[in-house]
Amino acid sequence: MFNKTRIMAESIKTTKKALSTATSNAPAFTLKTPKGTKDWADKDMTVRSAIFDHLTSLFKSHGGVTIDTPVFELREILSGKYGEDSKLIYNLEDQGGELTSLRYDLTVPFARFVAMNGISNIKRYHIAKVYRRDQPAMTKGRMREFYQCDFDIAGVYDSMVPDAEILKILTSGLLGLGIDNFKIKLNHRKILDGIFQVCGVTDDDVRKVSSAVDKLDKLPWDDVKKEMVVEKNQPEEVADKIGTFVKINGTVQDVLSKLKSFDELMNNESAKTGIEEIETMTEYLEAFKIDQFISFDMSLARGLDYYTGVIYEAVTEQSAPPTDAAEKKLKSKKKNNNDDASEYVGVGSIAAGGRYDNLVGMFLGTNSKGKKAPSIPCVGVSFGIERLFSLIKQRQAHLDKIRPTSTQVYIMAFGGGDGWTGFLPERMQVAGMLWDAGIESEYLYKKKANPRKQFDAAEKSGCPIAVILGKEEFPNGDVRVKVLGQGDDNEGELIKLENMVEYVSKKLQEVKVDGLSDVERLLQAK
Amino acid sequence: MFNKTRIMAESIKTTKKALSTATSNAPAFTLKTPKGTKDWADKDMTVRSAIFDHLTSLFKSHGGVTIDTPVFELREILSGKYGEDSKLIYNLEDQGGELTSLRYDLTVPFARFVAMNGISNIKRYHIAKVYRRDQPAMTKGRMREFYQCDFDIAGVYDSMVPDAEILKILTSGLLGLGIDNFKIKLNHRKILDGIFQVCGVTDDDVRKVSSAVDKLDKLPWDDVKKEMVVEKNQPEEVADKIGTFVKINGTVQDVLSKLKSFDELMNNESAKTGIEEIETMTEYLEAFKIDQFISFDMSLARGLDYYTGVIYEAVTEQSAPPTDAAEKKLKSKKKNNNDDASEYVGVGSIAAGGRYDNLVGMFLGTNSKGKKAPSIPCVGVSFGIERLFSLIKQRQAHLDKIRPTSTQVYIMAFGGGDGWTGFLPERMQVAGMLWDAGIESEYLYKKKANPRKQFDAAEKSGCPIAVILGKEEFPNGDVRVKVLGQGDDNEGELIKLENMVEYVSKKLQEVKVDGLSDVERLLQAK
Repeated sequence: MFNKTRIMAESIKTTKKALSTATSNAPAFTLKTPKGTKDWADKDMTVRSAIFDHLTSLFKSHGGVTIDTPVFELREILSGKYGEDSKLIYNLEDQGGELTSLRYDLTVPFARFVAMNGISNIKRYHIAKVYRRDQPAMTKGRMREFYQCDFDIAGVYDSMVPDAEILKILTSGLLGLGIDNFKIKLNHRKILDGIFQVCGVTDDDVRKVSSAVDKLDKLPWDDVKKEMVVEKNQPEEVADKIGTFVKINGTVQDVLSKLKSFDELMNNESAKTGIEEIETMTEYLEAFKIDQFISFDMSLARGLDYYTGVIYEAVTEQSAPPTDAAEKKLKSKKKNNNDDASEYVGVGSIAAGGRYDNLVGMFLGTNSKGKKAPSIPCVGVSFGIERLFSLIKQRQAHLDKIRPTSTQVYIMAFGGGDGWTGFLPERMQVAGMLWDAGIESEYLYKKKANPRKQFDAAEKSGCPIAVILGKEEFPNGDVRVKVLGQGDDNEGELIKLENMVEYVSKKLQEVKVDGLSDVERLLQAK
Repeated sequence: MFNKTRIMAESIKTTKKALSTATSNAPAFTLKTPKGTKDWADKDMTVRSAIFDHLTSLFKSHGGVTIDTPVFELREILSGKYGEDSKLIYNLEDQGGELTSLRYDLTVPFARFVAMNGISNIKRYHIAKVYRRDQPAMTKGRMREFYQCDFDIAGVYDSMVPDAEILKILTSGLLGLGIDNFKIKLNHRKILDGIFQVCGVTDDDVRKVSSAVDKLDKLPWDDVKKEMVVEKNQPEEVADKIGTFVKINGTVQDVLSKLKSFDELMNNESAKTGIEEIETMTEYLEAFKIDQFISFDMSLARGLDYYTGVIYEAVTEQSAPPTDAAEKKLKSKKKNNNDDASEYVGVGSIAAGGRYDNLVGMFLGTNSKGKKAPSIPCVGVSFGIERLFSLIKQRQAHLDKIRPTSTQVYIMAFGGGDGWTGFLPERMQVAGMLWDAGIESEYLYKKKANPRKQFDAAEKSGCPIAVILGKEEFPNGDVRVKVLGQGDDNEGELIKLENMVEYVSKKLQEVKVDGLSDVERLLQAK
């Protein structure tokens, strides 16, 4: 049964604009979008599209192709991929036929796509919405429907070559959006596993201990240690030993030499492999000139189970200044050691990813000899669109200039007196000429409109140029082209109709400051 | 319970590539997308994106803004909007909280958005997927998940002004995609209602009789008449009288004069209003120079209940040549009268829409005086992306040239012998320079690769230019820039590294035939 009272209650919390619909001849429910979802509109769409366009051309410049998978998948595809978060998956009602669920991320559908089509290597990007039945926190930008923006490289290649390129893409993606005060926290699952082994954590406990370590960006060490000892019953000395390792962070070179100084670590197969892989990558990071953005950080663990190699997370002070006590406490603590990343601690990540070599294999069958097909190794990055969006929206001065429409020309008719028709079909004819030339144009949808109303509409649209059809001038084949916002004494130019499109195009180039659109300037603003 | 056998059965029908997964260490289900859905990939994505881009810039040129609504809505929002088709709505499982369903179209969410935000006027476009639990017919392009591409104008304006602009947008949309052999069937709900009234159809029967008339593009008149008389029990003389009217079609002017010759029609309030509105529009259609595309057709009824004014449907011979007997029969019949639209009969529509003045009102509450708020009149058009896509994909010669990637430059290293490193970091450095200049570039993810492998990869990517790092040349700061596909004797140019980006950009302009990209040429091909 439909629970109207709950709907009402939620709507009051979430929908300011919702219209109360108490009376009988109105719909018997409150007008709103479902909990945790929102409409995007107005200049927000202009800004968001510009962010997508920037990332799309970046992905293309690296040889990426895009795919589009269904918004829902067979439930089996998603099950067993997200651990305890599986409870957040949206199921579609069983209306007969297959059981399906809304996608939880873009990574599992990508792995399904690669396995299903027997693809051996691909660089793919995918920008689309994903769905999680989580407790929404609109203010924090945590929604039930939100965008993910992923680039992944699948295939067997020389060690760390695609991994390094993904970090180059991550860096270019942020720099291109005018974000330069970020750090990329880097770690390696094999090194972490090695650390846990030498610290005496049993294989069964590795994941839960790892998830405790992962909280080090939000909680001080003492709290994390307590969680290990009390909740995850690790011996205190084990926790302390883990502490000595996970507090290590700094430049790749520094941390590598620190790690190598621990013989027990270098004698651990897993740790040794991870350390060698990071070593291999350093040369590539320098070739891409991005090494200065990297902070090699033993406390980065990342939640998802499926990571098998490098993991990374880009953080910036802007993105979410630490607010609660624990974070402040941690900040002040960490400040005492010369810790590269400390000033970024407690800040939400704006992009993240890692290597996952076994996920595609989970979808692969066995060959005729009953031998399991080898998995396709993958490495990728996901940009946090909502967070990037809120960062860019802080650039108020530039944001104010953004318009929801792209209208460039407003077509007006001036006249009056006897036999004045309002020149509506004439305005339509002129609009048609401009549209066919690809020039964004509008006019008032009225047979007769006074100049004031037409200028107001032009100003509201924010378009730079007006084309004016004068009662006497137009019948002679002339229109007046006026650059707006230059004072009333500016009469504009009288132009022959057949030259109008060319003249308007020229004028539009002139009014474009430094050749950049307002939204381009917004993205590049620091 | 999950019905595995059904899944298996369906998968065999729908997924060629599905991997059989009989054995135990493989997933216990067949790898496929849900019934009626598909993955989009490869060059299909290039073509589809180009279609979206074309329509998006068209919509923007008319002052359109875009919105993005959630993929699911409160179930109440959708209920009572689609008549008997409501059974095709996808419901989300009740996992506690609100009852929600996947959107069935973009029009109802748009009306909800307008009502919820108290918007008095807006021109909005929306390109997004909609969901219908229909029997899929992949071959016919009927899917359960498919794109809609809508432009709608909401607001109170002078009569028929936005309506005419929507028809201009419909025309430009198709012409810009290289489709010029189309007709826009035009009709008016008020005229149809008037016809039914003068023919003696009771108000209660209007909708069901109308839905019978709507089948005239797929069935011959005799079958439609039988449906009216037998299934919808109308007196035979009523059906015959309806026949005399609904067979009328031709140019707007011709049909207008025919209709006006029926006094009983001109004495009918509804018909008179509709005829006058079409009369008003003719002047605007001529101003937009699109009148030659219009076929005023009394047999066009359109399924959806919510239309209240003009309705239209663009058809083309290409889009789906009639195959079944009924259609052939009808064609031959119709050929006997000089019927403008007859040669297009039985062809699926590639774009359609109409005026719906009451839909927003269904979401509006009442004011303080308990008076229902007035609705916001709307008129819009929806492009059938899947059909347009299949039309454009028939342009084989141009399609063959389309590449999934945009890669422009392939970076190679030539060398060998003692101390040959393979120049991998060096290739990365060069790639970084090109990427930072926005030039799409790739290289082999191998430390050392022989020239053959690198040329093969370049050819596979289809990129026009190679930048070659020679073992002797590169240390001197030189790279070789080679335009590909000009024979092996073409050595390319030796360029200083610091001039590479500029030189490559120049070369890329030169290789661009007539300044058009391959996909631009595909869209403009007839």
